[in-house]
Amino acid sequence: MKKTFQVKTSKHSQMIDITNELETWIREENVDEGILVVSSMHTTAGITVNENADPDVKTDFLMRLDEVFPWEHPKDKHAEGNTASHLKTSTVGHAQTLIISNGKLELGIWQGVYFCEFDGPRSRKYIGKIVRG
Amino acid sequence: MKKTFQVKTSKHSQMIDITNELETWIREENVDEGILVVSSMHTTAGITVNENADPDVKTDFLMRLDEVFPWEHPKDKHAEGNTASHLKTSTVGHAQTLIISNGKLELGIWQGVYFCEFDGPRSRKYIGKIVRG
Amino acid sequence: MKKTFQVKTSKHSQMIDITNELETWIREENVDEGILVVSSMHTTAGITVNENADPDVKTDFLMRLDEVFPWEHPKDKHAEGNTASHLKTSTVGHAQTLIISNGKLELGIWQGVYFCEFDGPRSRKYIGKIVRG
Repeated sequence: MKKTFQVKTSKHSQMIDITNELETWIREENVDEGILVVSSMHTTAGITVNENADPDVKTDFLMRLDEVFPWEHPKDKHAEGNTASHLKTSTVGHAQTLIISNGKLELGIWQGVYFCEFDGPRSRKYIGKIVRG
Repeated sequence: MKKTFQVKTSKHSQMIDITNELETWIREENVDEGILVVSSMHTTAGITVNENADPDVKTDFLMRLDEVFPWEHPKDKHAEGNTASHLKTSTVGHAQTLIISNGKLELGIWQGVYFCEFDGPRSRKYIGKIVRG
Repeated sequence: MKKTFQVKTSKHSQMIDITNELETWIREENVDEGILVVSSMHTTAGITVNENADPDVKTDFLMRLDEVFPWEHPKDKHAEGNTASHLKTSTVGHAQTLIISNGKLELGIWQGVYFCEFDGPRSRKYIGKIVRG
């Protein structure tokens, strides 16, 4: 089964916790065991799993990524000017594969699933796909 | 089902669009719904999903990665001298998991699947694995 | 089927080859074909696939990652002080999806699966999930 999710980002760089959306869907589908592939439909926004507790981790995370892949770069050729966001997306990954167990995502206590906006604000889409098993 | 793909790279660093090869295979196998794991068989070449339109994105992408992981590094110990390509491979990922829907890869309009050569030119191999569901 | 694995790391940064543990489990479960998702249960430790031969690759790998994401950073806000390890985890990935073929992991000759400690030493956990197909 497959589902399309919409998300509206409000900042240029932003990590949005989508764990609840995914777990709600797993419950609706009555899936006990399997895997869930969650995939951004964009090349300037990705998906990652990281800390769900201290919000400063997200702030630091985006600041550090921006330092490694600065927005302005004298050698960039891509006319749209958002090369950095393409790099960040492939670094965290456009998608993640998650384990479903006992009707929930198999995550550590501090792990959350994040939609990562790297060139917002925009209206974005991501797809969830569940394979039972 | 599983398939081995061959690719001959022609440059030291190169992103080769393999979306068509994968979708042709999906059609040959008559798979409507499922997931496809595509995995590089190498530690100096990976797989990523990124922009399929402006070729300058690829140029910028490889230039930026090279800046973050420079080929020459005074502290590298690996005698083969290609430490940077190992880092780049784990950064983009040696493999990606893709969603199959209605007999096609579920990708955004600008997304393509790329084999990423980081220590070429070489003869390379990647494996596709489809799980229906 | 699912299995929880324990690993005790002994250094602050460390790559531990877990290929054998995973393949032993695949044999115990008599799985011939399918995929295996292996997922760290932590936000400061990940999973990657990289070189299993020269141990200097691991040394260089961790040194290079440390250079890109230095432990000390004047702008970090996260009070725990381990922001760098969160970045490294999302860069290599908290999890990897591997192909199972003929009862073994479908890996290239130089590829091994690594649990990556980025904030040890600690007692860590990772989960394996097999989907046949």
